[in-house]
This record gives sequence, structure tokens and C-alpha cells, in this order.
Amino acid sequence: MSAEELLNQIREEVIKRAPGNAIITDVQFEGPEVVIYAKNPEIFTNSFIKELARDLKKRIAIRPDPSVLLDPEIAKKRILEIVPDDAEITNCIFDANTGEVIIESKKPGLVIGKEGSTLEEIKKAIRWAPKPVRTPPIPSETIKAIRATLYRERTDVKEILRRIGRRIHRDIKIRDDYWIRVSFLGGAREVGRTCLYLQTPDSRILIDCGINIAVEGDRAYPHFDAPEFSIEGIDAVVITHAHLDHCGFVPGLFRYGYDGPVYCTRPTRDLMTLLFKDYLDIAEKEGKDVPYASKDIKTCVKHTMPIDYGVTTDITPTIKLTLHNAGHILGSAIAHCHIGDGQYNIAYTGDIKFEASRLLEPAVCQFPRLETLIIESTYGSYDDILPEKEETEKELLKIVSETLQRGGKVLIPVFGVGRAQELMLVLEEGYNQGIFNAPVYLDGMIWEATAIHTAYPEYLSKVIRNRIFHEGDNPFLSEVFKRVGSTNERRRVIDGDEPCIILATSGMLTGGPSVEYFKNLAPDEKNTLVFVGYQAEGTLGRKVQKGWKEIPITTKNGKTKSIPIKMDIHTLEGFSGHSDRKQLIKYLRKLKPMPERILMIHGEINKCIDLASTAYKLFKRETRAPMNLDSIRVK
Amino acid sequence: MSAEELLNQIREEVIKRAPGNAIITDVQFEGPEVVIYAKNPEIFTNSFIKELARDLKKRIAIRPDPSVLLDPEIAKKRILEIVPDDAEITNCIFDANTGEVIIESKKPGLVIGKEGSTLEEIKKAIRWAPKPVRTPPIPSETIKAIRATLYRERTDVKEILRRIGRRIHRDIKIRDDYWIRVSFLGGAREVGRTCLYLQTPDSRILIDCGINIAVEGDRAYPHFDAPEFSIEGIDAVVITHAHLDHCGFVPGLFRYGYDGPVYCTRPTRDLMTLLFKDYLDIAEKEGKDVPYASKDIKTCVKHTMPIDYGVTTDITPTIKLTLHNAGHILGSAIAHCHIGDGQYNIAYTGDIKFEASRLLEPAVCQFPRLETLIIESTYGSYDDILPEKEETEKELLKIVSETLQRGGKVLIPVFGVGRAQELMLVLEEGYNQGIFNAPVYLDGMIWEATAIHTAYPEYLSKVIRNRIFHEGDNPFLSEVFKRVGSTNERRRVIDGDEPCIILATSGMLTGGPSVEYFKNLAPDEKNTLVFVGYQAEGTLGRKVQKGWKEIPITTKNGKTKSIPIKMDIHTLEGFSGHSDRKQLIKYLRKLKPMPERILMIHGEINKCIDLASTAYKLFKRETRAPMNLDSIRVK
Repeated sequence: MSAEELLNQIREEVIKRAPGNAIITDVQFEGPEVVIYAKNPEIFTNSFIKELARDLKKRIAIRPDPSVLLDPEIAKKRILEIVPDDAEITNCIFDANTGEVIIESKKPGLVIGKEGSTLEEIKKAIRWAPKPVRTPPIPSETIKAIRATLYRERTDVKEILRRIGRRIHRDIKIRDDYWIRVSFLGGAREVGRTCLYLQTPDSRILIDCGINIAVEGDRAYPHFDAPEFSIEGIDAVVITHAHLDHCGFVPGLFRYGYDGPVYCTRPTRDLMTLLFKDYLDIAEKEGKDVPYASKDIKTCVKHTMPIDYGVTTDITPTIKLTLHNAGHILGSAIAHCHIGDGQYNIAYTGDIKFEASRLLEPAVCQFPRLETLIIESTYGSYDDILPEKEETEKELLKIVSETLQRGGKVLIPVFGVGRAQELMLVLEEGYNQGIFNAPVYLDGMIWEATAIHTAYPEYLSKVIRNRIFHEGDNPFLSEVFKRVGSTNERRRVIDGDEPCIILATSGMLTGGPSVEYFKNLAPDEKNTLVFVGYQAEGTLGRKVQKGWKEIPITTKNGKTKSIPIKMDIHTLEGFSGHSDRKQLIKYLRKLKPMPERILMIHGEINKCIDLASTAYKLFKRETRAPMNLDSIRVK
Repeated sequence: MSAEELLNQIREEVIKRAPGNAIITDVQFEGPEVVIYAKNPEIFTNSFIKELARDLKKRIAIRPDPSVLLDPEIAKKRILEIVPDDAEITNCIFDANTGEVIIESKKPGLVIGKEGSTLEEIKKAIRWAPKPVRTPPIPSETIKAIRATLYRERTDVKEILRRIGRRIHRDIKIRDDYWIRVSFLGGAREVGRTCLYLQTPDSRILIDCGINIAVEGDRAYPHFDAPEFSIEGIDAVVITHAHLDHCGFVPGLFRYGYDGPVYCTRPTRDLMTLLFKDYLDIAEKEGKDVPYASKDIKTCVKHTMPIDYGVTTDITPTIKLTLHNAGHILGSAIAHCHIGDGQYNIAYTGDIKFEASRLLEPAVCQFPRLETLIIESTYGSYDDILPEKEETEKELLKIVSETLQRGGKVLIPVFGVGRAQELMLVLEEGYNQGIFNAPVYLDGMIWEATAIHTAYPEYLSKVIRNRIFHEGDNPFLSEVFKRVGSTNERRRVIDGDEPCIILATSGMLTGGPSVEYFKNLAPDEKNTLVFVGYQAEGTLGRKVQKGWKEIPITTKNGKTKSIPIKMDIHTLEGFSGHSDRKQLIKYLRKLKPMPERILMIHGEINKCIDLASTAYKLFKRETRAPMNLDSIRVK
């Protein structure tokens, strides 16, 4: 059956079931959803939608017909008239594609009113569906820009949604000998350029599409030269989380002809957009090649279909995707693919942390079904046992206070997304407890990344959510944090006599402000450098970590000079966003159900092989550490 | 460097080195060779050609410029004038593309003359290069038709050769991270539809491209739905031998758009052409679908580049192919690929027999270099020990004489190519020794396949070659063999009272005359059926072998009736063209050098796995039994 025929069938079913007084104006595939447009959407009950979704096995959305929606300018005025001023509305964001209006206010309770009475009044007046939310404590430029793009280009976005919807529901022929396989285009037996390519006779999915920022040339990007890869053939791109080694190439896909959907959580969409821009900025400054431009990032945003944890979504005629919390960074996900009619289930962990961090809940380890698991192995080797989190936190505060006491500065190069926020929470506590008394400067994209964190409290750990909502005590807003917003401000931090702590990106000293600070602070033995994350082979960070005593630096006039490294160098591994070996094995032990096959990727060669070998011995399942360009048939 | 630039460089080099009086008219890439055309080709010495080939690392051929060649009609007259009548010339075959004339005669010594004097005289008179050969004892219709096609369409063939030559010598970019991998499109963990797909960043090779005649639907053909496969992308097709499970789909490749070369030995070209036609005939009679037509077989012939055992040939910019005797059937080869500049070597055995048969020498087991071996596993399981050849031969002759004595008929369904000729040699000896005295009828394509065998004595075992050449005693011409050439003749064999032996194709009772004989002879307990080859799952042969007592048959008027099986059923496994488990392991033991990786294919699942597991234990090398659609990176 063609998508058109299927849609007609669904239309008939909707009309047959709808209440007699429903004025349905259209039924469409939009992205993975079936969208019902009505002049009176309010008459469809939740149970109607649930039953329809269950029977059609589709995600259903009911939306007001655009003709009944009040003009956004006028609607905004009406909202402000209806809601009492005490609510302190800061923003109304209209989404023409969903017919929703997000009403940001300091006191969302007043927007809702008693038993929802105010909300009902708004709805009747403007017909848009009002979604009251608390005004994020730190405004995010990224989120603002994304919303603006989606609103401005709403016609284009609608067209994209419908095209994708039809592709998902296209007709396919099922072969006698159905097969499922995974090709590893990058990130197998290495860290960086992670890219899995899931193929069935009818579907092609790319899961993650990273770049290796530590190297140049062909090895920086996934193996798009794999003979099975064709950019036109891809049905969908799934992104597990916003780090560049998992998503860095995505705008490049659009540059080279991809025009399909990107599935990820909403925080991942926003964080990766921030990271793409940062990557572009830094590369431009350093005169490096980047395989895309700003406009490709925008195209990517328009093609992104955010999905929440736990919601199952058709992404091809035979593949259903569900994302689950991975505990690694905000919005990070385990991608679970259910293929065919209950035929086969594959989950890929992305990067995982299987314990509660200050920021996030631990990774999910239970799935309805699971035949093949693909797991990361960053710390997969026999001796990859990380210290306990609590000890590491103490150790950090000790290093910090000692350095400050001797009048030095502490430089902590961090991934702007994830590690930075975790560190902020540790430092905020230390400051509150009086362990140190000095400012914590945030440079690079950390501030903006933190803003995005505060916009998605529902993705944070329960503890932090409680502090923010119930205690009105947002740790990210602590007075200890100072934003470094310009080169001049950075200069002042470097040149000033004031002892301080600096969190700056990039985390592996591969560019960005952390390198600037490093160059200036390295020669003074009063200062301290603390590594808190993985330093990839080939990066400046790895060299410093290995104990190089001098680093050649290219100066502004193009000459090379040598910088002596006299500052204290520490590495604290306990902050890793990755599970260590013990925790990875614990994860496999707790996994339900135990799959028949486990594939180890995302680790240096011996880490993948060690983990595969141990898991085979422990669980007596097929385990393998595939190479890049291996393609493994799983069914 | 483009092919054109490279060719110009080679032209300059040839002109610089050539003798001063050489009149060179052209230098061209033709298929894998560099061809030098000259008006006086005779002045180029062998040592000149050898040195040039060594320095250019190319195969070199020197040919007369077409303008100096005498018209074939006139040339033939001149040959007949020059050569004494006693030579009994039976045919002169002009090959316009090589400038050669094959002179078939009963006494080739007289065509050569004292110290080659007659040959020299012919050469001067006609300018074609004369190649004297002995007239094949049985004329082959297939060879005649192939030669006729190549002569008639010589302009087209020349154009194909030049196009392929340029493609082989095209310019390529070498990646930082060069890789080599093999995808299994068919024949992994199964027998039938063998098809390997060797890929590097710059080259794509198909090695074998078989069909499974035992099944219908998608499973009959290789996985052309593999995402890495594109028919336009293939540089070359290599065929190890002429059985349909290794070559059956090749004309289909041309039907669906392939227009590149097919590399195989000359006997393989001729035998497979015969088998394609037979397959087409039988399928047509049975109303089955065939993925190609007669004209595609012709296209295939025109694109076939025969190569001899041991001659190394550039088949892509980075892959050199060498074929070695595999001992399985006439012209069967092990394909050895040397990839890159000494970077990597892969050999695929095709089907092998690692002992001398009556017909052939044993498979080659030494290679200059070898990193990965792909080996067949037809008899790879623990209990796959075949009886000794000598015992089996005795057993056969015993069954034959017992059946004949009780007045019965012996039906031996055989592969027309290989097993049939081996059996003929056994029966001829038994007849000569007086063990039985009854005719051996040959039905199906056996006669024609035997004709092709007699045309290539250099591919036969030394013993047979000696009998044919030195003793003038060609066993295939024995009076015991009678050809069944028509339906009426077959009827007479079936209905006649005369005890006899019948060799008929197909070997697994999947169609062809063997099924006709079977239907008629099965109900009489005096008769005997002897299986001498592998019976694939799903074939009528396998059912009978398993002991079915009745077989449903569709009659001419479309009804189904049941035929009782009362004839004696025997299976003699010792005639197999495959090495048994013991011999496969012996092969690995004798292999030089021992590769780092051995992949087991071409066997039912447990046979591949058992062999892989044993070889791992014995040789401590990586071994694997890949699945269809697995793609394994070997470097």
C-alpha cells in the first residue's frame, strides 16, 4: 500500500470514529506522527486519541486548523490581558506547526489559574493551545535562535514534516530472506567519529555521525567511502547525544545532500546546535577546514524531530525507535530500535554513566526486548577502574584550595557540555561550605550550555530539580560563577593577581579559550591544571598529561616558540561522564533482558577487546569488538 | 595520472626502446594487456618483451598491424598450399583481435616443420601469427560457436577490450586509511549462489556469482540487495569454475547493466557457456524464470578475458589476479588477489580437490604471499570423511556388474562437467578390464562437456595427457560410450530390454534427462540409482537419498501422480570433486605461507563452523564462518 493509500485509509477511520460534531479539516502524516486538524480540536478526548493510537499503531496529534488561530500579535495581547500581571509573563512563543503557544512566566501557576480556569479562558480566546512554563533562569541565545528559525521558516518546516511522513509510511516489499546488519563507519576500536549504519532490505539508519577533532584528513570523519553508504539512501539519522564525536558531522550530511529527519531529544538538539556553532567559530579562527557552514546548521535544525525518552516512534516502514536516558550528559540517550514485527531489537548505549551524578539519573538498563546490544568501551580495559566520585570531588577541592592559598590560578579544561555543569555543582557546594573563597570563571560556551540545562529541568536529576523548583535555589545562579564574555575580560582574568578558578573549553586543549589560558598560565609554577575528562591520542591535552615539559606554540606573527610547562598538572578521572570497567560490567549484569550478542565499540583497540573478552567469559554470549568498516549481520 | 597520460608515457617508453627499424603503428591498453601494433612485429625479441613487461609491470603483447594481415580467405588458401596434405588440416581459426590463426591439424608436427621452418614460411606469407594445435578428437559445438561470435563481432570486442583497459589503468586517489574487505553475497553457511564481493576504496571485484538451482525466489540468487553492491560499480568479475553455483548468474549481470570483464580460464569460459545454455533450455522447458536470455550469454562471452594458470594480471588499479589449479573440475581455479603495493594477499579456493583424480592434478597450495584464505567447507564437519577413491571405484563397478547381471539398468545422475568425465574414465577402465560388458549411455550435456575436455589437454592430469598424446589412446573415444542425442534415442534406452549404464544430467535430479530416466526406471527393483555427488537440501536427489518411498510427479496433462521408488539406491561419496574434511585440513597444513586469517564458506552451517573451530585449534589463526551479508574487513 502506498503512503497515499494508507493515509486515505487512516482518514476514513478517523472520520468514522470522531464525535459527530467534530469539524475535521485535514489528516496528514507529519514526520512520525499522524496529525488531525480540526476547527474544534478541544472536543477530542484523551481516551479517543489513545485508542486511535493503539489501533492504528501510530503516534496521533490533534491540532487546531490554522484558520481558527488568532494572529500571534493579537493573541499575545489577549494573553497579557487575561493573565494577571503578577504572573510576570516574559515571553510567548508561537509554534505555527503545532498550534501551540509556550507562555513563559515567573509564576506559571497564575497562568494556569484555579483548576486550569485561566488556561481555558486563554484557549477559548486565541484558539492556540497554551503551554505554561517557568521562565528559564538563564536565557539561552541558542534556544531563542532555534525557535526563531522554526517560526520564520514554518512553511518550509511543514513541507519537510510532510515529506518525511510520507517516506516513513512508504510501501515496501518484504524479501524471503529478511536481514538486519550494522556497519561501523567510525568509532569502532577508536574514540571519535562514531557512526553506526543500520541496514535492512528496506531501511537505512545512521546512528550518530561524529567527527574526531583530534586528527585531520580522512580519519577525522566517518567512512563515508564505505560502499554501502549513500547519502540519498538514508531514511533517518539518530543522535544519542550532543558531543561532537557523536554528532559533529550532522550538518555536513545536509550539506552533501541529505534531507531527511534527525531524531534526538530536545536538549540534544539545542546543545548540538550550540556545539556546531562553537566548532565552526573555533575552526574558522584557526583556519581549519570544516565540512559545513552556518546555513547547514540551520537546515539541520529544521530537519530535527525531537522525541522524549520512552516514546516509541516509527522512523522507517519497519523500524521503531525509542530513546532512553543514558546518564552521560543532558539529553543523552540509549537508542533502542525495534525492527520488523517483533522480529529483532538492537540497542546502542551511546556513551553511558551507570550511576547517579550530581546532574543526571543513571542510565536505563531494562528494555522490553533486546537481541543485540552495542556498548561503549571508553574505560573497558582490565585496569580502567576510576576512583569513586566522592573522593575525586574532595581531591579537586583540595587541589583548588591549595593552589588558591599559594596565590595561583586553577585551570580546568572541560567539555562545555556535561562535565562543566557537573564541576559547577561540585564547586558551588565547596564554595557554600567555605572550602574556598574565590571566583569561578566560566569561559567558552559553558555559560550558554548551562542556560540550556536550566531550560530542561525535567531532564536533570531529581535532587537538582527539587532544589530549583521547590527550594527556589538554583545552584547554577550562584554568585561564585562569573561569565567571561570577551577577549578583554579573559585578558583581565589572566593578567590579574587574583587567585581564581577557570573552567574553559575545549576539554582536550584542542582549541578555544582553554588553550589561551593554558599558554599564559603554564609557565608559572604557582598555577595548576586539572584534567577532568578523557584526553584523546594526538591532542595537546594528552601531550601535557603525558608529561611534556615544553610545548611548541605558533605565535600571532606565525613564528613557533616554545612554552615551558611549570604549572602543576593533575588528572582527576573520577569526574568522567563514562562508566568505568566495573560499572560497564555491572551494567551488563543488570541488563534486562540479556541479549544474544554484545558488540563493543567506542574505545581504544585493547579496551574494546578486553571488554568483549570479559563479557564473553561472564555471560557466555557472542561478543565482538568490530573494526571500522566491518558490517555485521545480526539477523 | 589519467589512463591517457599513462598510455602516452608507455608509448614514449616503447618507442625509445624499440629496435630502430621497428614500424610501430599503435600502442593501446586492451583488457589487462598493453598491446603494441607493428608492421613488422617479428623483429621484437622475446627478451625485449620480457624486459619491457618487467619494467612497466604490465603484460605486453606484440601484434601485427591489421593493414599487413592477408584476408582470412586468401590466407587459409596459402596455408593449405604451404603445409603438406599429410598434416590433415581440419580448421583454420582467425582471431582478428590478436592477429593469430589457430591451425588445427591431425599432425601438427607437419605444420611446424623442421625447426619451425614451415611455420616461418606461413608467417611470412600471411603475416598472421600461426598457432598449430592438434585437432580435438571430439568437435565441440560450444567452442565453435564462441569462436564464431568473437570473430563476427570482433570490432565490438576490440572496443570492449580498450574500454576495459582504460578502466583498469584509471587514476585513483589513495586514502589515509586504506582498507580491504570482503562481503559475502551468497554461499556463506550454505551451498549455492556463491558470490564474494571484494572491496577497497578504489576497487570492487565480484568473485563468483552463482545461483542455487535447488530453490526458487530471493534465495536462488546472491544478495544483490546488499547495500554495498551496485552493478555499475564493479570493476571485474572473477569466476573460479564453471559450475552454476559459482557462475550461474553471470549473464544476468550483463542483462542488468554490467559491462566489464569476466576473468577465468579458457576451459571455464567454454564450460560455463555450455552450462548457461543448458540451464536456459531446461528452465524454458519447465517454465521456470531465468534472469537472462541467450543474448546475455553472448555478451558475457564477448566480455570474458581468459587467463592461464599462474599468469598475474592487473584487473583494477590496485588488484592483481592470479589463478591456480584447484583440482575440482577442468579449468577450476583458486583466485589469488594481490592488493596494493605488496600490501595484502587474499586467496579464495573456490571448490578444491587436494588429491590427484583421474582427470586432474591436485589443487595448488603454495603462494608467494597470503594473509587471508577463504576456503570451501562442503565436507567440513567432524564426520565428513569420504571413502578412498580406489575403494569407491571398486564399489561402483561391483554395483554396476550386479545390476547388469540381474538384467537391470544403472542410472548415475551426474554433474555434466567434471564428475561425468571422472566416471567415464572409471567405467572405461572397468570395461577394458572386462568387469562388465554393456554400453554406457551419455545423456544431457555430457558429450559436449567431454568435447571441451578434449580441447584442453594441457589442463588435464599428466596421465591422461600422456595417454592421449603419446599413446594415441583417448579414453573418451572408447567404443563403450554411446551418445543419446534425441528424445527418441532416450526412449529407446528406457524401453529397451538391454541392461546398460546411463550417465545423465542433472546431478541432483533437479531437471534435465536424469529426471526422465529416474521417473521411468524408479518403479523397477531390478534397476539401480547411484548418487556420486553432493545432493543439496531441497532437491529431488536429496529426497530420494533420504529414503522417500514415493515421489509425486507432475504428468504432461498437469495432473500429479505418485511414482513408487523400488529401484536400488546407492550413494558413493568417494567420487566427490571436493576434498573431504581430512583433506581440507591436510590442505591447510600444507599451505604456504600460513595466512593470518582463514574464513570458511560454501558448506551447510555446521560444516563451516566445525571446520573454522578445528582450524582455529590446530593453527591458532583467526578463523570464522561468516554469514551471508557479513562484510569482513581484512585490512
